[in-house]
Amino acid sequence: MPQTTDRNRRILLTSRPKGAPTPENFRFDEAPVPTPGPGEILVRTVFLSLDPYMRGRMSDAKSYAASVEIGQTMVGGTVGRVAASNRPDFAVGDWVLSYSGWQDYALSNGQGLTKLGQLAHPSLALGVLGMPGFTAYIGMTDIGQPKPGETVVVAAATGPVGAVVGQMAKIKGARAVGVAGGADKCRHAVEDLGFDVCIDHRAPDFAQQLAAACPKGIDVYFENVGGAVFDAVLPLLSTGARIPLCGLVAHYNDTALPPGPDRLALLMRTLLTRQIRMEGFIISNYFGRRDAEFAKAMIPWVTEGKVKVREDVVDGLENAPAAFIGLLEGKNFGKLVVRVGQD
Amino acid sequence: MPQTTDRNRRILLTSRPKGAPTPENFRFDEAPVPTPGPGEILVRTVFLSLDPYMRGRMSDAKSYAASVEIGQTMVGGTVGRVAASNRPDFAVGDWVLSYSGWQDYALSNGQGLTKLGQLAHPSLALGVLGMPGFTAYIGMTDIGQPKPGETVVVAAATGPVGAVVGQMAKIKGARAVGVAGGADKCRHAVEDLGFDVCIDHRAPDFAQQLAAACPKGIDVYFENVGGAVFDAVLPLLSTGARIPLCGLVAHYNDTALPPGPDRLALLMRTLLTRQIRMEGFIISNYFGRRDAEFAKAMIPWVTEGKVKVREDVVDGLENAPAAFIGLLEGKNFGKLVVRVGQD
Repeated sequence: MPQTTDRNRRILLTSRPKGAPTPENFRFDEAPVPTPGPGEILVRTVFLSLDPYMRGRMSDAKSYAASVEIGQTMVGGTVGRVAASNRPDFAVGDWVLSYSGWQDYALSNGQGLTKLGQLAHPSLALGVLGMPGFTAYIGMTDIGQPKPGETVVVAAATGPVGAVVGQMAKIKGARAVGVAGGADKCRHAVEDLGFDVCIDHRAPDFAQQLAAACPKGIDVYFENVGGAVFDAVLPLLSTGARIPLCGLVAHYNDTALPPGPDRLALLMRTLLTRQIRMEGFIISNYFGRRDAEFAKAMIPWVTEGKVKVREDVVDGLENAPAAFIGLLEGKNFGKLVVRVGQD
Repeated sequence: MPQTTDRNRRILLTSRPKGAPTPENFRFDEAPVPTPGPGEILVRTVFLSLDPYMRGRMSDAKSYAASVEIGQTMVGGTVGRVAASNRPDFAVGDWVLSYSGWQDYALSNGQGLTKLGQLAHPSLALGVLGMPGFTAYIGMTDIGQPKPGETVVVAAATGPVGAVVGQMAKIKGARAVGVAGGADKCRHAVEDLGFDVCIDHRAPDFAQQLAAACPKGIDVYFENVGGAVFDAVLPLLSTGARIPLCGLVAHYNDTALPPGPDRLALLMRTLLTRQIRMEGFIISNYFGRRDAEFAKAMIPWVTEGKVKVREDVVDGLENAPAAFIGLLEGKNFGKLVVRVGQD
């Protein structure tokens, strides 16, 4: 169990990755713990969420959110406790969901903070009840819209988005076909998460196995990886299929376009002839529905055991860079969180 | 003015094109005029519609509709008159919209036939009031959904789909930017159809001109061509853009995928980071809304002059193959119809 220090330990971005991030892109740093001013609170991080989107923040390519500047603390969702408060609405000891980043302490004026109450497992607020679960929920509700008997395919099936996608498919009466890396993950997807079948994308005959698992085609492909999985999905898409598109992890480390032939028109022709809807969405645009709709649906599912997500907990802030690099390689097994401090 | 014959002249598909269709893919043929049996009517073609989708029917590649078999009459939408009737609901002389194909006469049991009444211009039922107008209407209503002040871009702007897309954009308060081939078509788009601007895709600096015409980006790109126009559109798409996808004329004659790099992932990344919806649709799935909704909206627009489409009338069934080959090359100017017989 890592100790909470009297210094503010942080992980800074020191250079932008070319291709896959390396440990040299990060720097461990210590600074004094900041003191809250009037109207401010000090939040002490207990859990830090590591998520694929952070690769985008390390880049200076134009995207939907600002880059982390060189020398700045890496950004990230966190669950923590109020360590000091100059606000009447937050008391010392309160559990909060915040966006403190890769560090022990952060100041806040209360904006964007969510009080968590007495959760049995506060880290769930970073997974099934947090941004990944919400991403799965919006993509399935607004775009995927699985109907009973349809086939839903999702990759990274044991990750927090994929796991919720598959279990929502089952709740809606659809067939859930997962894709994951390795036999352990595939077994977990079927035995613990309730997928009907899960295919190992490392298998040499992956495309054939996926086709065999989807004899009536694919009605919903929830896209969070791209790459070879999408290549195998494309010929299997049914007429009228829907593709919610929330991530392309397989491409985040790309430094150039892959060699040809150019399949851009092939993709468009497939969307046309099979009347497919493909739609990108960014979860930060949907926060208005988080408490009013998502939490109302998901909390009962989690309480009743209909939606589960395995956690992969890494101990110690200093291990966050290596854990994040592994996440982009699929080395995590479940929702990756870093235990930064004691409860 | 072509003469109506006492033989049934027809254009048959004799071979499948490799790349662009050639006159050798078609054969002119004559057969006896068929005699309607009990419950049947004989329809004499007056106008034949030529449309890009017919290129797909000449191919045996799997698509959303069956191919024309070798030796069979080419399919196509037609406006004609009832020449003989064994049905109480159709009288000799009635104007009807049918799917008689590239020939003088066809039998029908009445199914799929629409009585046109006394239209001043019956050929409009093949254009602005027919399948092309309906395609524009559904794509704009269900997927494009232009809002006041947004920018709508459409290629083949003087064709029957593009012309209606642009004029619907104006009706909805959006900016209409057309793309067409050559100065005459661009002038017609602006002066007669009311586009705000129209760019010649043959211009060497086409992409720069399009960017200059869309200073706030592109909110709706109504896709009916693909190719170089889409390449220029892609970097200009706004966050939250919609792309109704009803055709890819630039690719219909493709015999192989173009050389790389492979931009499939680039397209998906663009859809993701800009939260874009791209959706293919096939108008034959929407016939339930044709009379109830489309006709109710479009007929007043046409009557009031808010929606116009220029017609490009080719005289004589025997000229249909050359006219169709020209259509795929953009040689037509307006909705291409063949006058097959006299009124």
